[in-house]
Amino acid sequence: MRITFEQEKKLLKAMYMSAGMTEEDAEILAAVPTQSDFTGVESHGMSRGVLYVMGLRSGSMNPHAQLRILMETDSLLAIDGDDSVGVVSMVKGYELLAQKAKKTGIAFAVARGSSNIGCGNYYAWRAAQDDLIILASANTSPLQAPFGGADPLIGSNPIIAATPSNSFPVTLDIATTLVALGKIQTAQRNKSPIPDTWCLDVDGKPTTDPSKYYTNSPMATYKGYGLAVMVDMFSAVLSGAAFGTDIGIALKMQKERSGWSMLLIDPARFMPIEEYKARVDEYIRMMKESRRAEGVEEIFLPGELEYREYQKRIAEGFEIDKSLEIMTKSIALQCKLGTKEMTLQQIIDALD
Amino acid sequence: MRITFEQEKKLLKAMYMSAGMTEEDAEILAAVPTQSDFTGVESHGMSRGVLYVMGLRSGSMNPHAQLRILMETDSLLAIDGDDSVGVVSMVKGYELLAQKAKKTGIAFAVARGSSNIGCGNYYAWRAAQDDLIILASANTSPLQAPFGGADPLIGSNPIIAATPSNSFPVTLDIATTLVALGKIQTAQRNKSPIPDTWCLDVDGKPTTDPSKYYTNSPMATYKGYGLAVMVDMFSAVLSGAAFGTDIGIALKMQKERSGWSMLLIDPARFMPIEEYKARVDEYIRMMKESRRAEGVEEIFLPGELEYREYQKRIAEGFEIDKSLEIMTKSIALQCKLGTKEMTLQQIIDALD
Repeated sequence: MRITFEQEKKLLKAMYMSAGMTEEDAEILAAVPTQSDFTGVESHGMSRGVLYVMGLRSGSMNPHAQLRILMETDSLLAIDGDDSVGVVSMVKGYELLAQKAKKTGIAFAVARGSSNIGCGNYYAWRAAQDDLIILASANTSPLQAPFGGADPLIGSNPIIAATPSNSFPVTLDIATTLVALGKIQTAQRNKSPIPDTWCLDVDGKPTTDPSKYYTNSPMATYKGYGLAVMVDMFSAVLSGAAFGTDIGIALKMQKERSGWSMLLIDPARFMPIEEYKARVDEYIRMMKESRRAEGVEEIFLPGELEYREYQKRIAEGFEIDKSLEIMTKSIALQCKLGTKEMTLQQIIDALD
Repeated sequence: MRITFEQEKKLLKAMYMSAGMTEEDAEILAAVPTQSDFTGVESHGMSRGVLYVMGLRSGSMNPHAQLRILMETDSLLAIDGDDSVGVVSMVKGYELLAQKAKKTGIAFAVARGSSNIGCGNYYAWRAAQDDLIILASANTSPLQAPFGGADPLIGSNPIIAATPSNSFPVTLDIATTLVALGKIQTAQRNKSPIPDTWCLDVDGKPTTDPSKYYTNSPMATYKGYGLAVMVDMFSAVLSGAAFGTDIGIALKMQKERSGWSMLLIDPARFMPIEEYKARVDEYIRMMKESRRAEGVEEIFLPGELEYREYQKRIAEGFEIDKSLEIMTKSIALQCKLGTKEMTLQQIIDALD
């Protein structure tokens, strides 16, 4: 089935409200997985969005969370997300921080009491639309070992960055692991061998057998490890969040108590904003018009493919595959948004 | 031959003064390659330090540079390095910025008119010694292609980060390329094959033949490319520095006109500094005491090996190999610091 942006957002919002969230919080939370699906990042779209419902119902995520400001200056902010879905504290944190960045030219926030922050390109695009430069990160449930170690102590620890331009938001949104867990799980289902750089077995040794997966390998070996450690420092150690073995496990109904950090810079303090954006445009042009490698049709800037996919999917809708449709309908029924006899499309159409 | 920290610094300082620098600037510049050698990062030590003399004499680096402040607020700083060695503007920039960070809790600087910034762990350790968290980067002479491209447009674009602790400064200092050019050059000299992930040939295709080297591969393919692009945005596009094909080439006696960026955060704004440092210590302990991979004797945090090497070399001195000794003596003679009949040790001993 194929749904529009508004339909996906409406469905998720209704689910989150049925799980006890206020309309305002549900609206905030629904926007992030929806943008993820429409930018082609389906791993963080509805398939993850419906899992938040489980978290909110099981108690691992707090549907009634009240964001608390722990410390605040003209350019600094420390908050406690009160164990909400990380998305909610990070979107609200962004909104508070953007005001500070517009006032002073720079603002930095850390948060504790967080959990999953969803798709990074949401925050990246918000900042770029507001003519701000963003650099953000979050610590997550452990799945990678320290370099030379064997047990998972460090998360996928994503790094998010973006800059405005007149062309599109140049956007970085990467995990510090080499490949996503989802790719290894696909190989597990297909029983197909994987490159020995993807993951480590229980002894901390590289393996090509996905069934021996125990921890994710960092990107570029010790370099990715170093980046992941610095994400922990900025997002967890400095924020007062949990790190390593102290992070709660959602599957065990524990509150994650992880953290995030966010830096916003107003480029208009450094040169007129139109001059800055024109410089980014010139950078984009220089890269795209440069000589291509053999067999390559087009050079892309980071985030350009997602931007292009978004235009396409907004026009054409997002195609939900059968298994996601079945899972989504089952959760919609748990949320009492319809009856067994209704199709998912009918459930969506019947909302508000 | 084996020299002490003070001897190496004294020699480099005398060379830079003979190339026209003030005593103050020469002292600043000499400290960075010296620390590099004593932390075991010999690629950025005396072997690079003596090359600055060539840059200063040829005119690609300005020995009489006057740092200009282009914009300044309580938390922001934009400077023009006046085509000095990048080290000089970055150390002076750090000193100005640290005062701001202590006052407001956060400070961010960009610089144009820069060139080589030397060894990143120098800035990292300065910040950690001042109980500040640092995140910095610089754009450099192009040697990597945009992802899918064939021509060098992006530099090694290093990322530097560090945090204070009671144990040692946890320090990240990485290029966004997968391996250093020096490693590929060693393979060229030895005519030994290299992994196909290290570099690309003139057609932008991976190669195992180091003689076909044309551009460096980014770390972790598109992820490293994305990080390198963001370094360009922070350090060059925002600072007003040159990027891509506009960067000057030192070997052609051109001024590089590259840039750098630096963020400093005072953790004492978020919690008592002793509490923060104890949290970093606890993180270090958790990683180091975790289960090790098969065959691994010790787990290290980023920057720990350099810190340990520094203690050792400060006590024992730094061993200069014959070829570096010959090159260094030849440059010392060009600087009129001694006569042909003197050994390098005698030249050093005769200084002031």
